Amino acid sequence: MNPAKDIYRPSLALLTDLYGLTMAYAYWKSGRAEDRAVFHLSFRSQPFGGGYTVCCGLSYIIDFLTSLKFEPSDLDYLRTLPGNDGSPLFEEEFIRHLSNLKFDLDIDAVREGTVVFPHEPLVRVTGPLLLCQLMETPFLNFINFQSLVATKAARICQACKGEPVLEFGARRAQGIDGAITAARAAFIGGCAATSNVLAGRLLGIPVKGTFAHSWVMAFDSEPEAFEAYARAMPNNCVFLVDTYDSIAGVKNAISTGLELRKHGHEIIGIRLDSGDLAQLSTEARELLDDAGFGDAAIIATNDLDENTISGLKEQGAAVSTWGVGTRLVTAYDQPALDGIYKLGAIRRSGEGWKYKVKLSEQPVKTSTPGILQIRRYCSSSGYVGDMVYDIELGLPHDPAFIDSAYPCQRREISSDLDHEDLLTPVFRAGKLVYTPPSLEETRNRCTTQLAHLHPRFRRQMDPHAYPCGLEENLFMLKESLILEARRQIKTEKTKEQPWSPLAPPVEPVGLRNGRDCGRFCL
Amino acid sequence: MNPAKDIYRPSLALLTDLYGLTMAYAYWKSGRAEDRAVFHLSFRSQPFGGGYTVCCGLSYIIDFLTSLKFEPSDLDYLRTLPGNDGSPLFEEEFIRHLSNLKFDLDIDAVREGTVVFPHEPLVRVTGPLLLCQLMETPFLNFINFQSLVATKAARICQACKGEPVLEFGARRAQGIDGAITAARAAFIGGCAATSNVLAGRLLGIPVKGTFAHSWVMAFDSEPEAFEAYARAMPNNCVFLVDTYDSIAGVKNAISTGLELRKHGHEIIGIRLDSGDLAQLSTEARELLDDAGFGDAAIIATNDLDENTISGLKEQGAAVSTWGVGTRLVTAYDQPALDGIYKLGAIRRSGEGWKYKVKLSEQPVKTSTPGILQIRRYCSSSGYVGDMVYDIELGLPHDPAFIDSAYPCQRREISSDLDHEDLLTPVFRAGKLVYTPPSLEETRNRCTTQLAHLHPRFRRQMDPHAYPCGLEENLFMLKESLILEARRQIKTEKTKEQPWSPLAPPVEPVGLRNGRDCGRFCL
Repeated sequence: MNPAKDIYRPSLALLTDLYGLTMAYAYWKSGRAEDRAVFHLSFRSQPFGGGYTVCCGLSYIIDFLTSLKFEPSDLDYLRTLPGNDGSPLFEEEFIRHLSNLKFDLDIDAVREGTVVFPHEPLVRVTGPLLLCQLMETPFLNFINFQSLVATKAARICQACKGEPVLEFGARRAQGIDGAITAARAAFIGGCAATSNVLAGRLLGIPVKGTFAHSWVMAFDSEPEAFEAYARAMPNNCVFLVDTYDSIAGVKNAISTGLELRKHGHEIIGIRLDSGDLAQLSTEARELLDDAGFGDAAIIATNDLDENTISGLKEQGAAVSTWGVGTRLVTAYDQPALDGIYKLGAIRRSGEGWKYKVKLSEQPVKTSTPGILQIRRYCSSSGYVGDMVYDIELGLPHDPAFIDSAYPCQRREISSDLDHEDLLTPVFRAGKLVYTPPSLEETRNRCTTQLAHLHPRFRRQMDPHAYPCGLEENLFMLKESLILEARRQIKTEKTKEQPWSPLAPPVEPVGLRNGRDCGRFCL
Repeated sequence: MNPAKDIYRPSLALLTDLYGLTMAYAYWKSGRAEDRAVFHLSFRSQPFGGGYTVCCGLSYIIDFLTSLKFEPSDLDYLRTLPGNDGSPLFEEEFIRHLSNLKFDLDIDAVREGTVVFPHEPLVRVTGPLLLCQLMETPFLNFINFQSLVATKAARICQACKGEPVLEFGARRAQGIDGAITAARAAFIGGCAATSNVLAGRLLGIPVKGTFAHSWVMAFDSEPEAFEAYARAMPNNCVFLVDTYDSIAGVKNAISTGLELRKHGHEIIGIRLDSGDLAQLSTEARELLDDAGFGDAAIIATNDLDENTISGLKEQGAAVSTWGVGTRLVTAYDQPALDGIYKLGAIRRSGEGWKYKVKLSEQPVKTSTPGILQIRRYCSSSGYVGDMVYDIELGLPHDPAFIDSAYPCQRREISSDLDHEDLLTPVFRAGKLVYTPPSLEETRNRCTTQLAHLHPRFRRQMDPHAYPCGLEENLFMLKESLILEARRQIKTEKTKEQPWSPLAPPVEPVGLRNGRDCGRFCL
């Protein structure tokens, strides 16, 4: 199953912001389309106030690229687009150029299920400038959302301390694919199953579900409803008990369970969907245990996330399985990852690499130049730090990096440490050179990765920042490029806007994010 | 173009929570599959703290239902699902039943682009119980997300006071379809165009875009980059000016614009993507005006939404076009609408309708019984109130309703008022009886609807609650069903959990939402 390719009917060649195509056209017109470029996809800050992100979405990149082609209908559509004077936006010769494009890119990427950190390159795209530019929107779409949900799932599973988490979010997900993609990412992040049958069919994720309030309401009484369900599906009995009154519902579930047992079947458990889940679950547990249903699961649902689950656990909730929907699949408290895709280097025919940097009045928006790789160092007790380095600059014998969380801190790396380079070859000249692991293997990788991350970096609130940053020489190169770019700008002194004490205060831009102010510290 | 049908390759018959299918099976096993049922889709609270929601998603329901069929591959997958004892979850005879299903439902729905309010039925599904149940997950998925984004777009367009809004969110959207669906809903809510070329091709939405920072970085200097772009695409020049320094960028844009003008072309404008947009836009406006570019647009982007835009406008920002991405397409500050799908009535063969109510310890989760319709009353100055009534109970000569926002308030309706019933027939016995309007017509409907809503119900913050509620007789029927259901429950007094002052306080459930506590007020 190839998620992107098998789900979508039309070619996805037009899954791009228009500017991808107008730039492609303008590069082509300017004779720059074949310049060799390096772009990096990274993100700027950890989601959910957490200490890690679980990288996810590479499978979609692979499917997208292996099936990518401008179809005649795509090209016909592009022919219809007008510029501001009504003339066609694209010349016919360019349209023909698109129809013959070979997507011969080199792609290196971090494996799905890997824990990653801000400003690390998660995908490196190398190839003709025109092609690289067309990858921006789709790659960001895939990585941003899927990494977000995988991370949310990992946080929720962490809060559940080993108890199974079921993903129940399809009805409130952002679109059909929002639901399917979220089911996949949630499974990678640690969820045990999904309610989404289409995701189950397409991706092989286990599916779970029993019945809704409407089942109970369709009968004249709750006992009648439970008994009818038990007769129909004796091998799938989770009784939703809160249609009228949760505790009365638990008692009805027990009666039905006793009857079922006489016929050689066991109930799976009960589900609580409203009210005070801490109180109701402990009462339900006691009732179930007293009636000989010590193994019956208590499944809780109702707008749960890692915070409500931690709270319920603190209050002694006797929940054994957690059903999490809306807040997982939409990443409710932060529904977007701030991923970006930036040019690192460019090389015109017959010339060497030119490294590139984008400035910004917002320091966090300054990009990193180079052709980047991440080296992760590891001791016997787990990961000790990540260093982003430039593969052309290489690494000195005793490398050091400037920590992006504490930019005045220079961290030396012991040469005894084991290490792994995280960007792995996925495509070479458009050919897939990577064997994607199974979904189970990716899920296991996520578990292993998190286990290697010290709990201080993993805790839900106010985690310690994991040591990562730019290798010292790369850091200095970036600084010098920034200074050079600033020198190039011949700005006149701009006049300040008159300020009145009645106007709302404007937040000082440089203070918005303390993490990337390294260049003020050298 | 049928969005759902034409975008997705596989059959969407399995786009359901598993419980839709297990209930379908259990209804079938219990001889209840053909009971006639009425379900309503509604939502519980206005998103974004606003005063209205723009209903959206019906087109997807239509596409879904007109192409719905269990394919052999769907059925093969269902055959593989096990129950908790390892035996198959579904009997083979049921699988055959699914393969022969005729989806002969009656569907009535609120037209897309209509403003709607909490607890109003947006879709009414009438038909065999088994079929009705299978519509729950997909219908909620379509309506929840699309209504959310259409509403967000309407709020943003309202903040922009007629200035065009461009949707630029594909890269941070929740999945491929999250992006496409959001582009559609954003257009309905009032956006002028999208950056998403695939959405443009599939749905006919205008597309916009020029270039990114990478374009500027690919050249040795910004003037060189601007000039190259102008030569390549003289009919599509919006210069992104903040790659190095925004004001220097504006000056470079002006130089290029003057050069372009000599060749008979005009720049469209400039784009600001970082920094203090209020200050930079006024400076840019002055520079552009002084240089004879009074018509050049100033496009602002950078994590904008209705709140930041209102703030920028208060500070006198000279922005003429707003590019809104992440916060629109993910509905960032509230990324899910709390839509639900509840059984209202059921009729067994040879019997009359039985009206159904679901209780809850959370009053807002109590459902409304009946076979519902919404009547909207209108005076010459706009909409005056919405009354949800039961079509079997009908309406008295002088109807009154109990306002769900002020449940102690009984509102009488003047018989002079014009009115419209909002639920319109869409399917009859599975046959489409509705001609969907064009996207443009739907967008116009949204504009007209909002114009009929008094500004006090439309304002962004703390709007007045629009009068709507249950027709008095329906209200009393609901109350009596609640009381009857409570009488049926023979609960023992449950013991309270011991409380310690160190435990986190639990919010009193009944206070969570003041809107639906009507039943305590009679």
